[in-house]
Amino acid sequence: MLRTPVAAHTARVRALLSAVSQRTVEQVALTRALDRVLAHPVRTPIALPPFRNSQMDGFAVRVTDLARTPRSLPLRGEIPAAPGTPAPLDPGHAVRVMTGAPIPDDADAVVPVEHATVHDATVTFTRKPDAGEFVREAGSDLAAGDPLLPSGLRLAPRHLAALAAAGLDSIPVRSQVRVAVISTGSELATPGEPLAPGQIYDANGPALAAAVRSAGAFLADEHRVVDDTAAFARALDASYAAGAEIVLTSGGISAGSYEVVREFLEPLGAHIDTLAMQPGGPQATALYKDVPVVCFPGNPVSAQLSFMLFIEPILRETAGLPARRPEPRTLAEPLTSVTGKRQFRRGVALPEGRVAPLGGASSHLVAAMAASDVLIDVPIDAVTLDIGTRVETWNL
Amino acid sequence: MLRTPVAAHTARVRALLSAVSQRTVEQVALTRALDRVLAHPVRTPIALPPFRNSQMDGFAVRVTDLARTPRSLPLRGEIPAAPGTPAPLDPGHAVRVMTGAPIPDDADAVVPVEHATVHDATVTFTRKPDAGEFVREAGSDLAAGDPLLPSGLRLAPRHLAALAAAGLDSIPVRSQVRVAVISTGSELATPGEPLAPGQIYDANGPALAAAVRSAGAFLADEHRVVDDTAAFARALDASYAAGAEIVLTSGGISAGSYEVVREFLEPLGAHIDTLAMQPGGPQATALYKDVPVVCFPGNPVSAQLSFMLFIEPILRETAGLPARRPEPRTLAEPLTSVTGKRQFRRGVALPEGRVAPLGGASSHLVAAMAASDVLIDVPIDAVTLDIGTRVETWNL
Repeated sequence: MLRTPVAAHTARVRALLSAVSQRTVEQVALTRALDRVLAHPVRTPIALPPFRNSQMDGFAVRVTDLARTPRSLPLRGEIPAAPGTPAPLDPGHAVRVMTGAPIPDDADAVVPVEHATVHDATVTFTRKPDAGEFVREAGSDLAAGDPLLPSGLRLAPRHLAALAAAGLDSIPVRSQVRVAVISTGSELATPGEPLAPGQIYDANGPALAAAVRSAGAFLADEHRVVDDTAAFARALDASYAAGAEIVLTSGGISAGSYEVVREFLEPLGAHIDTLAMQPGGPQATALYKDVPVVCFPGNPVSAQLSFMLFIEPILRETAGLPARRPEPRTLAEPLTSVTGKRQFRRGVALPEGRVAPLGGASSHLVAAMAASDVLIDVPIDAVTLDIGTRVETWNL
Repeated sequence: MLRTPVAAHTARVRALLSAVSQRTVEQVALTRALDRVLAHPVRTPIALPPFRNSQMDGFAVRVTDLARTPRSLPLRGEIPAAPGTPAPLDPGHAVRVMTGAPIPDDADAVVPVEHATVHDATVTFTRKPDAGEFVREAGSDLAAGDPLLPSGLRLAPRHLAALAAAGLDSIPVRSQVRVAVISTGSELATPGEPLAPGQIYDANGPALAAAVRSAGAFLADEHRVVDDTAAFARALDASYAAGAEIVLTSGGISAGSYEVVREFLEPLGAHIDTLAMQPGGPQATALYKDVPVVCFPGNPVSAQLSFMLFIEPILRETAGLPARRPEPRTLAEPLTSVTGKRQFRRGVALPEGRVAPLGGASSHLVAAMAASDVLIDVPIDAVTLDIGTRVETWNL
């Protein structure tokens, strides 16, 4: 049996999704931008701060009026931190200012309230302030038009603070692709409901839905259907109606009977394939109403691995998130594989760059996968790997 | 002026929030559990897999029937992966089984479809299978009652897959504290709207709202109010009605006039304080209708730093997220501070464990803070720090 290399299927999926992954910019409200990735550099349209203001609660003065101290100046009212333009400051006068309040053009220093004494309408100063002291000049953080944040930045709270301070309520971020998930199988039961004989709980729906979100995409729709082509078609139509740009399916594409995904999509021109990998051999791709459909096998480890290999890199790249990088480790235990298939085994990272395989190769070991923290990438022609063999691993 | 040490205020806030942070478990639906942290160990209530099933599309047989091969056996129907209990397998017969389908008790191996030949109602085998070959025994992943996931685990998609496979639709996770944010100040404008003279855009509302979410808590309510005690009281009442367990405020607590937070909360017994830190000196704590209110100063750098110092550690701990750890670095540029205040300066991490301060000490430098990636913790009595001085830093 001729099996397709993993790299060839990777390229096929990437080509199928190229239109989706090239739409990389959308505009979002600032309130929804946390953890999104800036798609363009952003400049501040206004100066920061936008006007000259006081750094302290105190008194705005002309420094020349305090050439000799102690000196008392008549107090001319109070400027709050509030909308408005302050009146000019007459020579020989002081005005009370609040932190953040605009300072009259003629004032060139602020004396903090704790360094002055007020009697009735007069304020007494004991020290000449430096010119500019406790004055925040307009644009002292950034001038209008200056670069504020670079493209590619993942937005943390302090970045949102700066965008808000610049008055921006909507910003260009990397697209969040709309993905629908359909898990298929008449044997599937809903978690929380009783399990009849012959049933298993659906792990793929919850796992793929979460994986879509973790990869920076948007879960547009979610279905579980029995092995019935009409039910599957309804789920595809609903996903299309929900604006899904990619549909992921699990189950129903191998060589058996009741292969609902295959039965429905093959006549529509789906590419059904068997890859030289384990788990996850059966794979398919299709277009349904011009929406790419990427089909995974139904065993839960297979479905999760297929997502990680074929979809996650594209979604992360589109979202502007960094790619997972392989990390070489050495085997702490021997491992046997099958020739002609690239195995992705699950394992536990150990100190000193070692890794121990966990559970066997079988694709039903969903609990062993949950207990693992790395994938071990076993080369296609490896049969036995001794302790100490260097392997590529991927952190889960 | 006697200023309160940072550690004393930290202890005061922690005591005020102790009731909130001790409520550390809530039950959430599996569909909402991604990235939450398990509050208890979880065991699987069922065996995984729950019943003996086929690993392949193929034929279930009794191995003893294939002691000599080639051998042809009459084919007795087909077992789908679907609800139901398979009929017993008579000696000398084979039954077609789909991947995941239950296997008759009497069958003890599955021969894959590609290693057998079907003619009419007969299937021919050329090799004796090993006992148990391609059979997934019930409980071969985990037995019923076995530990499935440990407490403290941050839930990734593969963990949700295992919880779903075990039939669990609701799980105990660390609490998500409900936090309301109220930013105060008559000078504040809404991002996206025109800016009048004397106005600045509100950076604290968006920054604190995002910081609450980033720390694993739930943003229960969000308000911005002018310097009017009635408006501030309405925002507090609305936050209370929204079920806020903590209210965070920014602005209105220093020594000036129009200090709305101070004016409203001080008569209710608020503790108003001045800390030996810069920025972020003015701080307050209060109870409003038994809900803890933690009050930050209004300058945007001050408000963000105050959150990081006093609130974030408690929220992260309650959510089960790891604490930020300080990291020593050496100064790549000299730095001057003020004696009697612990400064938190912003800086940029450089190679080889060095750090360069960015922007000055002033609390209005919101863009410089956004461009920074570390905080530099300058000791309270430091005045000048030379190049090469070792300082504690915190990654932002």
